[in-house]
Amino acid sequence: MLEKLKISVFKANLDLVSNGLVIQTWGNASGRDLKSGLIVIKPSGLAYESMKPGDMVVVDPEGKIVEGRFKPSTDTPTHLLLYKTYRTLGGVVHTHSSYATSWAQAGKGIPPLGTTHSDYYYGEVPCTRLLTEDEIENDYEINTGKIIVETLGATDPLMLTSVLVNCHGPFCWGTSAENAACNAVALEEIARMAFYTVLLGKSEPINKSLLDKHFKRKHGNNAYYGQDNSK
Amino acid sequence: MLEKLKISVFKANLDLVSNGLVIQTWGNASGRDLKSGLIVIKPSGLAYESMKPGDMVVVDPEGKIVEGRFKPSTDTPTHLLLYKTYRTLGGVVHTHSSYATSWAQAGKGIPPLGTTHSDYYYGEVPCTRLLTEDEIENDYEINTGKIIVETLGATDPLMLTSVLVNCHGPFCWGTSAENAACNAVALEEIARMAFYTVLLGKSEPINKSLLDKHFKRKHGNNAYYGQDNSK
Amino acid sequence: MLEKLKISVFKANLDLVSNGLVIQTWGNASGRDLKSGLIVIKPSGLAYESMKPGDMVVVDPEGKIVEGRFKPSTDTPTHLLLYKTYRTLGGVVHTHSSYATSWAQAGKGIPPLGTTHSDYYYGEVPCTRLLTEDEIENDYEINTGKIIVETLGATDPLMLTSVLVNCHGPFCWGTSAENAACNAVALEEIARMAFYTVLLGKSEPINKSLLDKHFKRKHGNNAYYGQDNSK
Amino acid sequence: MLEKLKISVFKANLDLVSNGLVIQTWGNASGRDLKSGLIVIKPSGLAYESMKPGDMVVVDPEGKIVEGRFKPSTDTPTHLLLYKTYRTLGGVVHTHSSYATSWAQAGKGIPPLGTTHSDYYYGEVPCTRLLTEDEIENDYEINTGKIIVETLGATDPLMLTSVLVNCHGPFCWGTSAENAACNAVALEEIARMAFYTVLLGKSEPINKSLLDKHFKRKHGNNAYYGQDNSK
Repeated sequence: MLEKLKISVFKANLDLVSNGLVIQTWGNASGRDLKSGLIVIKPSGLAYESMKPGDMVVVDPEGKIVEGRFKPSTDTPTHLLLYKTYRTLGGVVHTHSSYATSWAQAGKGIPPLGTTHSDYYYGEVPCTRLLTEDEIENDYEINTGKIIVETLGATDPLMLTSVLVNCHGPFCWGTSAENAACNAVALEEIARMAFYTVLLGKSEPINKSLLDKHFKRKHGNNAYYGQDNSK
Repeated sequence: MLEKLKISVFKANLDLVSNGLVIQTWGNASGRDLKSGLIVIKPSGLAYESMKPGDMVVVDPEGKIVEGRFKPSTDTPTHLLLYKTYRTLGGVVHTHSSYATSWAQAGKGIPPLGTTHSDYYYGEVPCTRLLTEDEIENDYEINTGKIIVETLGATDPLMLTSVLVNCHGPFCWGTSAENAACNAVALEEIARMAFYTVLLGKSEPINKSLLDKHFKRKHGNNAYYGQDNSK
Repeated sequence: MLEKLKISVFKANLDLVSNGLVIQTWGNASGRDLKSGLIVIKPSGLAYESMKPGDMVVVDPEGKIVEGRFKPSTDTPTHLLLYKTYRTLGGVVHTHSSYATSWAQAGKGIPPLGTTHSDYYYGEVPCTRLLTEDEIENDYEINTGKIIVETLGATDPLMLTSVLVNCHGPFCWGTSAENAACNAVALEEIARMAFYTVLLGKSEPINKSLLDKHFKRKHGNNAYYGQDNSK
Repeated sequence: MLEKLKISVFKANLDLVSNGLVIQTWGNASGRDLKSGLIVIKPSGLAYESMKPGDMVVVDPEGKIVEGRFKPSTDTPTHLLLYKTYRTLGGVVHTHSSYATSWAQAGKGIPPLGTTHSDYYYGEVPCTRLLTEDEIENDYEINTGKIIVETLGATDPLMLTSVLVNCHGPFCWGTSAENAACNAVALEEIARMAFYTVLLGKSEPINKSLLDKHFKRKHGNNAYYGQDNSK
């Protein structure tokens, strides 16, 4: 079942590796079949080298395994909470990519320091508050999802596609697993350049009109970047 | 038409990727046919993996599409303004390469800290002033070109082949698209070493005579580097 | 003899190279045959490119060559001391990987700054004290092993699989040569992110409950990460 | 003539590229035929991708071209001065590798901060003084060689195989072109780790006995590292 989605999720997982965002088993990507609401996700702790599309696990919105001989990723409850909260999401990705994770470890959001950032984010990529002891000890993975939602607040998740979980690392999403992976790749490079820029002595955000210009050039009704003229 | 130039521009675009200067669709290279004045440029937002030489777009100096089924790069007006202003340019390249962009984000020119720098630049690689709100909101891409020209001032563009656009990233140029790409690769490594050098505590420029020696060894009438003995 | 173990040790040595932890001959991996107690180790100073499984050297617990035409790694006495002290070890790896070695050169343990760290280590990755002049001049390699043991103290080595030797570099271990190599790869990335995090201004360890959660999710009786359901 | 040496010099030049020390044409390696005293060196400014062993240039100790259709590297006079001064040298390499060059640009020698350094160098890798205006303007390349010799002083060049030329970059040497390239690769990694270590807050050299131990383990009469038992 959902063979096409399995291939897409499989590819998104491999994209994370080939782009240097994931070593060993430090990441996971999932995708949602918008029709049935079923989610396809990477198995827990499985090596990427030998993984096949057919190894992907199909779970229902409550996390019950519908198909697959492996346990799904330990982070599945986090993915599920994001899908449940945001009906537009088609894919979710979690990595421990070096620079984005370092910002998360520092407990700092990534400030918008240039137009590369503004091409993807309309302001800071926020970092969550720390989870409380109770939130860590009980339903940790669900609470990780909840704190992302708390951090997004009223923001449309497709307009802010990444959040850094404090002391942990980035979660990214998008319209599909592959789109979410693409956002994770962009985030890592943005995090890297923000790191260098801060070491060069600059940390104030770029001005509002430049942020507006670049974000709106690629997102929203008046976007004019790329080839899609369908609207 | 211009099949040879299309191949050259196509190659220059791929050079940016293979040298690690461009991920996803974060860059563009163009070349000019000096005879007809037509410009060949990368399509907007097209993936590099599947791009072919025939996908390159041919535009006239005013930006009208002469041939090609794709929209040209959103940065086309910037390229065109540079070509219009400087009659010697055969190629223009724009990237968001990590280190050069970080200097641009910091709003700082790259100081000449060693002979690698002086082999390419006769002094600082300058960073533009910030665009005004009005310049951003109206004809942003043209104004990006204008601010580069303003920053170059009276300098011969073939003697200063890169400018950092403040909060944005580097624009580079040269006698051809491939030469411009080559300059972009050199700039990124120079930006990287300048970053390390500054972190090691040194930021005063090298002395004038060493700058002279290295720049003039490779550029101008008395150059003696390389194999070209045609003069 | 021990052909399977030789292949495993050979592979572990190559893993260090392919993961960028070892250049030239700057590393070594060994494995122990738990049945016979014999140890298989990389030859000293041999180039990785031309190395074959059959080049691995078999030594007894006292370091006497049992099989092999090459001298074993100069660090063999360190490996042997670790095997002798800890009966559960199946593999030992030593590298001069860039970031872990830089922490060792700084004489600092790697603080637990995030969940990536806690997935592998239950607290700081400690750095040994400096060896005394006498410990350096006499039986240097044995004393390097002793100082690792001194630093581990009463800790189960399979619960703390890496120690940084002051001014030198990391030693890692595990249940097999390949597992030890895997731990060395994780350590390097953890060391890298800790380096970035410290430069971003954060160096206090993460809170105890988050450390607990992540370490215990992967290690010990209540682990629920991965596919092993045998318990 | 000297076909074997040409292959060795050609390989050494490519080693610099494959190890990431050289981009574009930013480096050169040469080797000396100890019997005839002739030197084989890379042509000036030639692209590495299309270079062949037969493109190497043969020059006599005074720099006169003995064989070859290309101009030799602009740095040839520096190489020749080193060969002339030190009769034991079989190879010389010059690169603009990122970290070693950054130390040179900072005008600082690389302090011995760990055993990796001590495996190759018995103390600091020194940085030369700046050349005077006169030394730059007249016989610049020869004076670059002279200042290296001045910096080495009475030290045996095979015991100190690298010097950083101030504001320029590293020169390395050895018993052959390939050995010199090997030393350049080690130097770059040592420079990289010293950079990280200094950023972590440590810059005092390691103690003398550890320096002694590691250097003498690999160099001199009592060396016991590696497989060479010929002595």
